[in-house]
Amino acid sequence: MKNEAGIRAFGAHLQRLREARGWSREVLAQSADVSRMTVYRIEKAQLAASLDVFLSLAHALEISPRELMDFPQPIN
Amino acid sequence: MKNEAGIRAFGAHLQRLREARGWSREVLAQSADVSRMTVYRIEKAQLAASLDVFLSLAHALEISPRELMDFPQPIN
Repeated sequence: MKNEAGIRAFGAHLQRLREARGWSREVLAQSADVSRMTVYRIEKAQLAASLDVFLSLAHALEISPRELMDFPQPIN
Repeated sequence: MKNEAGIRAFGAHLQRLREARGWSREVLAQSADVSRMTVYRIEKAQLAASLDVFLSLAHALEISPRELMDFPQPIN
């Protein structure tokens, strides 16, 4: 997987956003209509979210996709 | 594929960004180290870009991932 540092940074960002809302992975998964394992694998950088899942996560978190993509970009 | 309207909007956004630079799909593909077919399928909303490809496209276009995600969100 290319851009592993970026994938890890996004996973940590998603976890921060989820935990800031006091949500479990299950709650975010149900709200975004994805599996809990998908949320887990994205947060642990085991999976690069596809844009359709990314848009569902932004919708579930009630933020714009642009905000969801707003995380510190590591230097590759 | 969920969020088809969003995937289509992103494809059109990517094409606008590419054409604004006067680049062919081949030029963008080489710069992002993806196949020309991947660029074509993303622009035509036949493929939901994964985050690693998305980050490569942003890098190739020399914009932040946040800017690449900054496109008009259709109402689903």
